[in-house]
Amino acid sequence: MRDFILYVNNPIKPDFSLNDLPGSGRVDLIARCVSSALWLSHNVRRDTNIHICFETNGVRFVLSFFGLKIKRVSPDERNIASWIKKAIQIALENKERVQEGIIIRKIDIETFLNEFTGRDIVILKEEGVDIRKVELENPVFILGDHLDIPENVLNIVKKFNPKIVSLGPKSYLASHAIVLVNNEMDRKLYNFT
Amino acid sequence: MRDFILYVNNPIKPDFSLNDLPGSGRVDLIARCVSSALWLSHNVRRDTNIHICFETNGVRFVLSFFGLKIKRVSPDERNIASWIKKAIQIALENKERVQEGIIIRKIDIETFLNEFTGRDIVILKEEGVDIRKVELENPVFILGDHLDIPENVLNIVKKFNPKIVSLGPKSYLASHAIVLVNNEMDRKLYNFT
Repeated sequence: MRDFILYVNNPIKPDFSLNDLPGSGRVDLIARCVSSALWLSHNVRRDTNIHICFETNGVRFVLSFFGLKIKRVSPDERNIASWIKKAIQIALENKERVQEGIIIRKIDIETFLNEFTGRDIVILKEEGVDIRKVELENPVFILGDHLDIPENVLNIVKKFNPKIVSLGPKSYLASHAIVLVNNEMDRKLYNFT
Repeated sequence: MRDFILYVNNPIKPDFSLNDLPGSGRVDLIARCVSSALWLSHNVRRDTNIHICFETNGVRFVLSFFGLKIKRVSPDERNIASWIKKAIQIALENKERVQEGIIIRKIDIETFLNEFTGRDIVILKEEGVDIRKVELENPVFILGDHLDIPENVLNIVKKFNPKIVSLGPKSYLASHAIVLVNNEMDRKLYNFT
């Protein structure tokens, strides 16, 4: 099992326009991360999940896409954004189920991270150990958006004894970082060399 | 210098809707490839270009984005798609310059490939040699869209003595393949190990 957690800094407007995703609180960026986490060519990664931690209407939620179960979702930004918009509506009605494989919960990051006990928690940082040189057991990768993971959240994550891992000599977009992680985990899983 | 060439199979409608990129001839896929080729976190890859070979109104064009020069382009699908739409209008007026760093030309794939003489031409295929194990000199990577590179185009590319290179044990989306190539080239360039 492979999980990604994306921490989104700026609040998302509940009524954001599908015609202006960058202006919505960067739903374009979130959508690209979902696409990167779950899509292969003509296939969905059934062993992978992505969880978006974000704020809307002053409350923080975690929106989860489970690769095993999702259906009727396409890899383009607008389609994924439409599911995010629907999820926010569901959350504001105090419900959790968006559709099969998509769930939104009112939960803080620390309580949420506790659900991953026993798994390797990984933070991606340029100054970390090269991902090609570390062993990772059922990893959970935590990424920040374009504003990175804020200090107070980083302090919470540090309680979970995270591994600090690097992807290369450049600073990559979150969605690209997810692609690189998925490839490296594929290679390890299949002993591809 | 690093170049990507994306071969698009289905024609693009000149008047496609920015609200339906998947239905336009997969402009969503093209936009994701441009974003993957040229964007870093808070930066553009100035040493990288991407060229889209596609058909519109019965004519084949090559639309080039030059990392060194582009400006006023964002990494979201809709913004890149709006530049593609503008480029098609320019091309149909028999002009070539879209804006600084974006050019569209009426040119066939063989003539176009001749412009890369002296550089390593690379085809990405699962059964190729692992990209981590090959040396590449100023490479030009050729990718197909969701329908892959058609046989007749592949036969043209083969005249240029291409290297067949693999990215891993799975079949990746074209945009994800580009991210993986960029990372591997970054690592080689900076001796990151």
